[in-house]
Amino acid sequence: MPVTDPEAVFRGERLAVSRALTQVESGSPDGYELLEALFPHTGRAHLIGVTGAPGTGKSTLVNQLVLGYRQAPSPPRVAVVAVDPTSPFSGGALLGDRVRMSDLAGDPGVFVRSMASRGSLGGLAVATAGLVKVFDAAGYQIIIIETVGAGQAEVDIASLAHTTIVVEAPGLGDEIQSIKAGILEIADILVVNKSDKPGADHTLRALRNMLSLSHPLPDENLHHEGVSAAPSVPEAVKFSRWIPPVLPITATAGEGFQELFGAIEEHQEYLKSSGEWETRDKRRLKGELEDLLQHRLRERWEGGISPAVYQAALKQVIEREITPWRAVDILLEGGEK
Amino acid sequence: MPVTDPEAVFRGERLAVSRALTQVESGSPDGYELLEALFPHTGRAHLIGVTGAPGTGKSTLVNQLVLGYRQAPSPPRVAVVAVDPTSPFSGGALLGDRVRMSDLAGDPGVFVRSMASRGSLGGLAVATAGLVKVFDAAGYQIIIIETVGAGQAEVDIASLAHTTIVVEAPGLGDEIQSIKAGILEIADILVVNKSDKPGADHTLRALRNMLSLSHPLPDENLHHEGVSAAPSVPEAVKFSRWIPPVLPITATAGEGFQELFGAIEEHQEYLKSSGEWETRDKRRLKGELEDLLQHRLRERWEGGISPAVYQAALKQVIEREITPWRAVDILLEGGEK
Repeated sequence: MPVTDPEAVFRGERLAVSRALTQVESGSPDGYELLEALFPHTGRAHLIGVTGAPGTGKSTLVNQLVLGYRQAPSPPRVAVVAVDPTSPFSGGALLGDRVRMSDLAGDPGVFVRSMASRGSLGGLAVATAGLVKVFDAAGYQIIIIETVGAGQAEVDIASLAHTTIVVEAPGLGDEIQSIKAGILEIADILVVNKSDKPGADHTLRALRNMLSLSHPLPDENLHHEGVSAAPSVPEAVKFSRWIPPVLPITATAGEGFQELFGAIEEHQEYLKSSGEWETRDKRRLKGELEDLLQHRLRERWEGGISPAVYQAALKQVIEREITPWRAVDILLEGGEK
Repeated sequence: MPVTDPEAVFRGERLAVSRALTQVESGSPDGYELLEALFPHTGRAHLIGVTGAPGTGKSTLVNQLVLGYRQAPSPPRVAVVAVDPTSPFSGGALLGDRVRMSDLAGDPGVFVRSMASRGSLGGLAVATAGLVKVFDAAGYQIIIIETVGAGQAEVDIASLAHTTIVVEAPGLGDEIQSIKAGILEIADILVVNKSDKPGADHTLRALRNMLSLSHPLPDENLHHEGVSAAPSVPEAVKFSRWIPPVLPITATAGEGFQELFGAIEEHQEYLKSSGEWETRDKRRLKGELEDLLQHRLRERWEGGISPAVYQAALKQVIEREITPWRAVDILLEGGEK
């Protein structure tokens, strides 16, 4: 496959974008060369992260978000990067999810790209950042990054976004589907999907209580009032920092989306007026640089040492035969080229 | 200072332990040499992490814990490593806290060591792991690692422990003092200190609600009963995995400690019977090895490049003049020795 013409990507030609995504995802030299040409034209899109456990109806929500954007008076072009760092299982599930996207199949202003796991999670974040850059350079104004909320990897990937939406659902009786505290911390907007189901009130209340603890307001009374009365978004914006709203949604019925779109817009305004938009942009690029640097340093070292040597050293440490310090000495000597 | 005699450390001689701690903390070649001798004799102590925001009364709680252990019929020897990765401020506060430890000053079975910040947070975790090894080799059966709960660094350091106690307090109207969701995730035992203060019920309830979401039980009714009726520790242990209990405490009055000691003991039994004790031990050692390896790879690279080159590359990336990939190429070429 020849290197894609960057000009065709800038014009948003679908075939060129598709080819560019494949080249960038593969991490081939062609892909890197292409990114060199695209990179100066990035930084314009609003990146929206959507993360939530399996079973929260996250994909249906994303589907509705895309539909909503496309039904606006002057609709933005919308791209979806669906990332799934979890096991082989979800390949199928993702495919199922994507079938539901068929409402959007004929719409030239929408581009959906699924990404499978690629072993290294650092690698996945790096690859996701690459795909986002392709869409950004191709003029997609809204880029939704959808991840399965299951751990540190999602936190890292969601940190690519300007606005992170965390999706929860009531009555999920299973550990995997439960709320991960670390993920709540990254939420700019919290959504309780399936809010017509029993237990939704409990979930809403618990999330608001939790936020009242992690985002206390200066005045104690105001604080308690604020959270129990479900602060409307404009109220939250009054304060100098962002208080994540907790919004009930029923994605299958399309209910609650007006509030969600409102919250996304308010958050964007907050980001821009507070200077946080640029701060996040810089932090994201610095994070990418650091990730790549650590990755490449480690990769370069791994290239010079056999996995058996590493495993043997680790075993000796665990059996307390050698210290971790000595092990690193041994490993670094072995790793020198 | 000559290298400390490891035999004197094994015998628990106070002066030798004190000297060993200093040598290990300094990261000097002598310190590493000493750790080589001590390391095979570690792995016996019960490591207890205690973390909480400033103002939660964490240090008073640690003080009471130590007193409680020392008043037992056959008291264990107890060491405290007080870690403070935050800014210069807390040097003074720590000193103040330590004055309160004077109750224990004459007790030869207690050793308290404060550690100040040392710039690099990775470095702090590494240094803490070293001090813990000295105490472990010196026969301290209980080692309490006290950290200020303020971010990722504490999560890393607390992950050194077998049992992690997270301390909260009611009515802290300040952002820094509020609950960090990421820290709750690492809690084996949650303590609400100052439970005689107004708002303690609210805090207890909110924490239990939060746990009911992150640790749901198989049966929904049992689940709700369990959390609203404050599950006693034995009840929690009935289940195959550990449900962190939420315990009210008034550290200044010494109230609630019987339950806390009970919970610590139950957790130790759970760790040992479930095989989790060994799992955590292995994970800790693997984590140490990985941290050291990354640290040393980065250090080796940094030794060969000027900070100005790094800053210039970062600036070019942020201004989108070069891609992060190109920047890493430049930095790695510059970093080759």
